[in-house]
Amino acid sequence: MNTRPNPRGRLLLVPTPLDFGCAVQPPIQQTLPESTLLATAQVQHWITENAKSTRAFLKRVGEVHALAAPIQSQQITELPREVHKKGDHQSGGFDARPMLAAALQGHDVGLVSEAGMPAVADPGSSVVRAAHDLGLEVLPLVGPVSLLLALAASGLNGQNFAFVGYLPQDGAERAARIKQLELLAHKTGQTQMWIETPYRNAAMLSALVQALQGGTRLSIASGLTLPSAKIQSHTVAAWKKGLTGPDGHTPAVYAIGP
Amino acid sequence: MNTRPNPRGRLLLVPTPLDFGCAVQPPIQQTLPESTLLATAQVQHWITENAKSTRAFLKRVGEVHALAAPIQSQQITELPREVHKKGDHQSGGFDARPMLAAALQGHDVGLVSEAGMPAVADPGSSVVRAAHDLGLEVLPLVGPVSLLLALAASGLNGQNFAFVGYLPQDGAERAARIKQLELLAHKTGQTQMWIETPYRNAAMLSALVQALQGGTRLSIASGLTLPSAKIQSHTVAAWKKGLTGPDGHTPAVYAIGP
Repeated sequence: MNTRPNPRGRLLLVPTPLDFGCAVQPPIQQTLPESTLLATAQVQHWITENAKSTRAFLKRVGEVHALAAPIQSQQITELPREVHKKGDHQSGGFDARPMLAAALQGHDVGLVSEAGMPAVADPGSSVVRAAHDLGLEVLPLVGPVSLLLALAASGLNGQNFAFVGYLPQDGAERAARIKQLELLAHKTGQTQMWIETPYRNAAMLSALVQALQGGTRLSIASGLTLPSAKIQSHTVAAWKKGLTGPDGHTPAVYAIGP
Repeated sequence: MNTRPNPRGRLLLVPTPLDFGCAVQPPIQQTLPESTLLATAQVQHWITENAKSTRAFLKRVGEVHALAAPIQSQQITELPREVHKKGDHQSGGFDARPMLAAALQGHDVGLVSEAGMPAVADPGSSVVRAAHDLGLEVLPLVGPVSLLLALAASGLNGQNFAFVGYLPQDGAERAARIKQLELLAHKTGQTQMWIETPYRNAAMLSALVQALQGGTRLSIASGLTLPSAKIQSHTVAAWKKGLTGPDGHTPAVYAIGP
């Protein structure tokens, strides 16, 4: 009898549209290319931040390409809460290998986040690391990445840049961190980027114009890929003249540089 | 007679496939979503690194969607050599505003690079900055970005990362820079990324395994979005056991972290 080694599944990194939670959701083909949609429609095993939003995403994919299996029969596993809250690299080495059992049995597994590219400004890198440690092929699919759209559109240095996650919530700590990032940007020429929860957008802008020097350039990009997209890139001196930033419902990416 | 203010054009940031210069070029729809292709087909004024490759790109777009004008009648302007060589932010403040004259006259202008997203790990941010200074709308279109695909697929921290461009070519300087980046990655948890010219891939890997500590994780991603895509993420100790990196013809993205 002919036997052959059981082929292993891959870990697919599946980007999702940036319109998560938005009232207006453009057709999914507008931001996901054909190859991403086709590959996504074949996957039946998922690792995700939130099963409910993954089902909503799969419903949208299914409207464009027939899914290999009905959504209710797909296996959707959520990342542990600890990883959501603290990130993959601050929770003491979360071992995600058991989550990839299906891949060892020959099934492709998809990693997905709420919006954009999984494991970038979002949890999931432990799962990618586990896939490498298990010798699985990792395949990142093309889709929208808000950080990079924001960087490209900022007019700031895109040949040397850093993304630092969230800034501290405490006012004094936040101001100190802003000044530290500004110093680094001026000293090294490295653009410094971060994100903020939408309802804190106004507080963030107010903290920035207070802490930053007038000559520093501040870019705020919000609603990327949406009809409401707004990219504002001005010196802090210009911002201080009363420019309005993004509203309190739209995710924004902040960037500063010389 | 009815007059109305002349509407202004926008600056569109147009991503291109990552297969620049490759023998095998997958269909353009595989990596560029519908909305990017449609918007690109409408643009007739271009700012680019290289006019010849922009024409080749437009030919591929034209095979999918009718172009608004024949390629030979489109206006294609190359960025000054100085910006290619030194980058937008090291050549003493290149003023790109004159290049955007067509936008002031109401035409959309497309900014495009050889591969991937313009102004990210590529020249062009001066043009984006000039657009903001002229009050033009800047619209980044969705497409492949090798840096972020590489980061997502690395298994390294994607919630705190930096891209630093190229490392020094001189052996001693390069080794010192590698150790400096490693120290930073371990101290702050920030993933450090860079790129290298393909023919130096082997020399880079050799320098890395010599300079880095055994426990540091090194990810090398090459051929992203191509059938030959390879993402290798291992500890330096594992790399030292003789793993082969990317060949000398394929662009690669390097990343290290704890």
